[in-house]
Amino acid sequence: MNSFGIKFKVTTFGESHGKAIGCVVDGVPAGLELDLEFIQNELDRRKPGQSSFTTQRKESDIVEILSGIFEGKTTGTPIAMVIYNKDQKSKDYSNIKDIFRPGHADFTYWHKYGIRDYRGGGRSSARETAARVAAGAIAKLLLKELNITIKAGILEIDSIKSKNIDFDYALKNEIKTLDKDAQQAQIEAIKKAKKEHDSVGGAVLVKAFNVPIGLGEPLYYKLDAILASNLLGINAAKAVEIGDGIKSCKLRGSQNNDQITKDGFLSNHSGGILGGISNGDTISATVWFKPTPSIFKEQKSLNIDKEEITYKLEGRHDPCVAIRGVVVCEAMMALTLADMALLNMSSKLEYIKKIYN
Amino acid sequence: MNSFGIKFKVTTFGESHGKAIGCVVDGVPAGLELDLEFIQNELDRRKPGQSSFTTQRKESDIVEILSGIFEGKTTGTPIAMVIYNKDQKSKDYSNIKDIFRPGHADFTYWHKYGIRDYRGGGRSSARETAARVAAGAIAKLLLKELNITIKAGILEIDSIKSKNIDFDYALKNEIKTLDKDAQQAQIEAIKKAKKEHDSVGGAVLVKAFNVPIGLGEPLYYKLDAILASNLLGINAAKAVEIGDGIKSCKLRGSQNNDQITKDGFLSNHSGGILGGISNGDTISATVWFKPTPSIFKEQKSLNIDKEEITYKLEGRHDPCVAIRGVVVCEAMMALTLADMALLNMSSKLEYIKKIYN
Amino acid sequence: MNSFGIKFKVTTFGESHGKAIGCVVDGVPAGLELDLEFIQNELDRRKPGQSSFTTQRKESDIVEILSGIFEGKTTGTPIAMVIYNKDQKSKDYSNIKDIFRPGHADFTYWHKYGIRDYRGGGRSSARETAARVAAGAIAKLLLKELNITIKAGILEIDSIKSKNIDFDYALKNEIKTLDKDAQQAQIEAIKKAKKEHDSVGGAVLVKAFNVPIGLGEPLYYKLDAILASNLLGINAAKAVEIGDGIKSCKLRGSQNNDQITKDGFLSNHSGGILGGISNGDTISATVWFKPTPSIFKEQKSLNIDKEEITYKLEGRHDPCVAIRGVVVCEAMMALTLADMALLNMSSKLEYIKKIYN
Amino acid sequence: MNSFGIKFKVTTFGESHGKAIGCVVDGVPAGLELDLEFIQNELDRRKPGQSSFTTQRKESDIVEILSGIFEGKTTGTPIAMVIYNKDQKSKDYSNIKDIFRPGHADFTYWHKYGIRDYRGGGRSSARETAARVAAGAIAKLLLKELNITIKAGILEIDSIKSKNIDFDYALKNEIKTLDKDAQQAQIEAIKKAKKEHDSVGGAVLVKAFNVPIGLGEPLYYKLDAILASNLLGINAAKAVEIGDGIKSCKLRGSQNNDQITKDGFLSNHSGGILGGISNGDTISATVWFKPTPSIFKEQKSLNIDKEEITYKLEGRHDPCVAIRGVVVCEAMMALTLADMALLNMSSKLEYIKKIYN
Repeated sequence: MNSFGIKFKVTTFGESHGKAIGCVVDGVPAGLELDLEFIQNELDRRKPGQSSFTTQRKESDIVEILSGIFEGKTTGTPIAMVIYNKDQKSKDYSNIKDIFRPGHADFTYWHKYGIRDYRGGGRSSARETAARVAAGAIAKLLLKELNITIKAGILEIDSIKSKNIDFDYALKNEIKTLDKDAQQAQIEAIKKAKKEHDSVGGAVLVKAFNVPIGLGEPLYYKLDAILASNLLGINAAKAVEIGDGIKSCKLRGSQNNDQITKDGFLSNHSGGILGGISNGDTISATVWFKPTPSIFKEQKSLNIDKEEITYKLEGRHDPCVAIRGVVVCEAMMALTLADMALLNMSSKLEYIKKIYN
Repeated sequence: MNSFGIKFKVTTFGESHGKAIGCVVDGVPAGLELDLEFIQNELDRRKPGQSSFTTQRKESDIVEILSGIFEGKTTGTPIAMVIYNKDQKSKDYSNIKDIFRPGHADFTYWHKYGIRDYRGGGRSSARETAARVAAGAIAKLLLKELNITIKAGILEIDSIKSKNIDFDYALKNEIKTLDKDAQQAQIEAIKKAKKEHDSVGGAVLVKAFNVPIGLGEPLYYKLDAILASNLLGINAAKAVEIGDGIKSCKLRGSQNNDQITKDGFLSNHSGGILGGISNGDTISATVWFKPTPSIFKEQKSLNIDKEEITYKLEGRHDPCVAIRGVVVCEAMMALTLADMALLNMSSKLEYIKKIYN
Repeated sequence: MNSFGIKFKVTTFGESHGKAIGCVVDGVPAGLELDLEFIQNELDRRKPGQSSFTTQRKESDIVEILSGIFEGKTTGTPIAMVIYNKDQKSKDYSNIKDIFRPGHADFTYWHKYGIRDYRGGGRSSARETAARVAAGAIAKLLLKELNITIKAGILEIDSIKSKNIDFDYALKNEIKTLDKDAQQAQIEAIKKAKKEHDSVGGAVLVKAFNVPIGLGEPLYYKLDAILASNLLGINAAKAVEIGDGIKSCKLRGSQNNDQITKDGFLSNHSGGILGGISNGDTISATVWFKPTPSIFKEQKSLNIDKEEITYKLEGRHDPCVAIRGVVVCEAMMALTLADMALLNMSSKLEYIKKIYN
Repeated sequence: MNSFGIKFKVTTFGESHGKAIGCVVDGVPAGLELDLEFIQNELDRRKPGQSSFTTQRKESDIVEILSGIFEGKTTGTPIAMVIYNKDQKSKDYSNIKDIFRPGHADFTYWHKYGIRDYRGGGRSSARETAARVAAGAIAKLLLKELNITIKAGILEIDSIKSKNIDFDYALKNEIKTLDKDAQQAQIEAIKKAKKEHDSVGGAVLVKAFNVPIGLGEPLYYKLDAILASNLLGINAAKAVEIGDGIKSCKLRGSQNNDQITKDGFLSNHSGGILGGISNGDTISATVWFKPTPSIFKEQKSLNIDKEEITYKLEGRHDPCVAIRGVVVCEAMMALTLADMALLNMSSKLEYIKKIYN
């Protein structure tokens, strides 16, 4: 249950305040040059403490590769990666030890398992997404060999939309917004919420360019369905749209159908997916993130003895988790596509003969 | 790739105009009374030709159970169900044989597989959802033993919202709308589109009541993520929201957090899921359906020789697929929960001792 | 639990005296010509009533394909096959209804599931192997495209060994023995046991020729390990040897190692598998079958009320199940190799580039 | 492909001379006390350098747990374990770098992946079994809660059989033999082979006591079939027998059937498994190991340039791998049973009601 993917398969482990988090990436084809600097760089893009709009926690996030590479290349064996938790000081957790923080997984983990690692979010902490980003970096390196690229950025913060989408700009600004013109208003919204001890939600747009036709396995491993699962499984995600998503569902069929010409599709409302299979156009999805449940206002809750309490969080937290979600969305898109690319290789007898004959 | 679920597992097969469609349901616990009338009844709720707002195609959809039951009860062995295609007349398909219908899977299946069953949608036809509904009916019978019930209805058609949600009313009206007051406007929108040879989109709200705390397997088989995958995998679905979904993502944390008291949660923005695990509150999801791609207006497309053509569909089609999607959404919710209920049984050592000691 | 394979995946269903048995074969590459006569022919090779050495039960075993082919070729969608049970007369089962036949699965199914289809062996009947043979026939057709062939025959009956191995001869004689010279003695052994209301065991040798190097996925989907699982899962199988098997384990390393020259391996003690991966030499395995538990002598047992009884079987049964096991072993070998061939396609980056660039 | 198990799931990683080996154990129920000393102790039982009959390589095999436990108990989250490779000195591998050692996986890995970690056996080294033993130790702790115990020992070395089976004695002698009386002859056989720069094969008998009725999932996750796969997947294993195995297949049905009385089965030829499901009697299997391919005699082989060479190994190697295989067989038996115990929990509706109602 801590694994995903069929051929390009990722298993993650670790708690936010345990010894380490990490992952095992299985099924990576042999012979891929593993650019370690790139992997570390991806982790650095995700790590907190980089701006005033993300948590000030210091996580060094240095990844160590334990297996699966030899002389700089993948060998076809599982690649284990470990990130030791440095900021694991024996903090005082007495204020959260026995209580269920509203909006968090404390309540459900406690009831499901009868035991809970109360130091930070434990397994349910967003810290685990570092493992996905590390795995996603390997997927990106594989996709690069097929000329597929993935880009993402902030589409909305606190109802303020990014309208002039510029993926390159998203790489350069500290809230990773897609729209230079919306940036100031989005920053103000975060600042205001933070000042009021509150948090805001947002949305991330993620795209994959140059994806070949044919990725996605009908009917229960469709590209869009698995993408939805992988994106909605990110902490705090509450909705996923494929292509134009809900907007499509308010159109007429004649408006929404992407008509086809020799030069390609005349529009891309579908987000590059038809019948669960990539159609050669740009793959596109929007992921919606709820406002961080960690706020500094008083809230009602229960403790583990089922007594009512009021509770006010202290510490350092992202006022808008969507920002750091950008890199995670990229990783999940990359991992989904890498798996689908490998799976699709046996779709036709013709391909099989190409390999074996 | 034509299977889903881990413990309660469904494999479907069949094309819209082949001999039969059907499914194999594996992992159903032994000793469950299988109410065949209920299963057939569920199929009848889905089948077309029931109102002027769904396709007039006649599909008798009589399900036949081939295995897995004995003296009226499940035996723990796989339950195979077959629905023979009656309306399989040797129709003339020459008008669609060589062309890719816009908005359909024709284009992608052709490129992925190099061959395509051009009679109707083949495997990608919504007819396949009958198999899901049959499997879902068994899941519902299992969930009933745990007092879990599932309800669904139309939340929106052509941007006309259902506001006064009444699940019982949805069972009784021909467009399965949740709101008696919105019904007339929703009907008019469909009629208008139909008259203009066009189609409309819509949304389905689906809920599960009385779900125990603890269902959902973190971190990569979360209840919400798998629900998203199973719902978005339904034909024509383009977006899924969990709980308040996008609305949640426009709130502040202080507004969106569901505070907890002795009497339960003070609100249910989360849709009954925290950290991917059910929290004991009502599970809720919204599925968005695009307008039927099958329209009767002229559209541009290509044929398999890559020549540009114009194309105008003929025949009988749903002007709004969301309506028949209602029963399918219920089925996918039931199948997801049945699987999660079985999976959760080994979460605690205490449970294991209860069974074996 | 009623499925196996990862990319070439088979799900079977059905009980010996239910309506039908059958299977769904998923993952078959598109574009494969499906020779229906060949599939039926394989089933005919397995079916009972063909000689005095197998059961006289009449099972017509006519296979019907419900999906997954179009104009004679596979389409990449699941292939469902059904074999209706004709010999399903409302026989009197009162003599076995409440008792556990020694050596059969009656006892364990009853305790595991609390319910048991007592008509014949139900799900645990060897009749289910017809579904495997049907699926295996499709696997053979795929392997044929890669020039891989599979052969099998009787290696031993009642301790009488086949010494001069001749796979072509096995195709032509009614006990499928590999050795013309041993045939008479093997036949006599069966006849003698039958006359004494008893049964005998035996062994099947199965080989795959012209298998390319590289099939098998270390470390937990090794070719030999999965072959062992698939062969030992056949009804009545009690042991599996790979290559020289136990004989190898009585040799010195210097005798057992297969030394390598430019012209290939100097010997093939390993059965064509090194480190779980095919080495290009002939794949070889031996499957050992226990004597049929269905005998016509008095035996002690319990009934479902836990009372001691004595019990004597009536009816028609194979005195030596190994004989009909020959075709099933071929099928399981073919299914294992087909899955491994598809899985291996993404082992190297080079292969992936071959498909996509 | 580096994972096994469905509910109690193990993923391993690592190469013999890379940074580390290890595993992630997923699906362990929450609330299990994790006796770290026991886990380390199991590893110590496997590690080399303990007697003159196993390799003199020094591997300290200190296991470090990175996740999944809190305050001494399992939390239901994945348990990652790492064993760093200490004996990883920059040895000179020039003598094996470019050649394929006969009987080893060098040849097949090279051809499958196009790249090979030539330092020791890399991924195919028996060193990886340390990860299985660590995982198996956790499985044993879980099974202990159900009163299931597992025992194993040497049944044969170089054709010298252990006849008077004594599992307690196997725990105390350095070749782990089951028979005090055979010990001296078995030791002499190993010494003789070693002196002659050669190696010998052997067999391990492994049993599980007090296993409840009902474990094993028909028809393609049968207890015996999965046990066969998990045992035969151990390095150097070439055959697996369930219960009396081949001996059963030489008996008559009337001799081999285990008749049933109120006090249990009158015999246990079946090895405690009927129809793939445990019958309440002792589970028993025999695993056959080939002689270590690493010998110090000259052998013919090829190098990676396909040139013929002669090759003579140097270094430290087990003259009989079966000895250290004993602990690995126990681990694989434990892991198989733990998975089956969790899977069986949803076999009956009655069990499900016990948990949820």
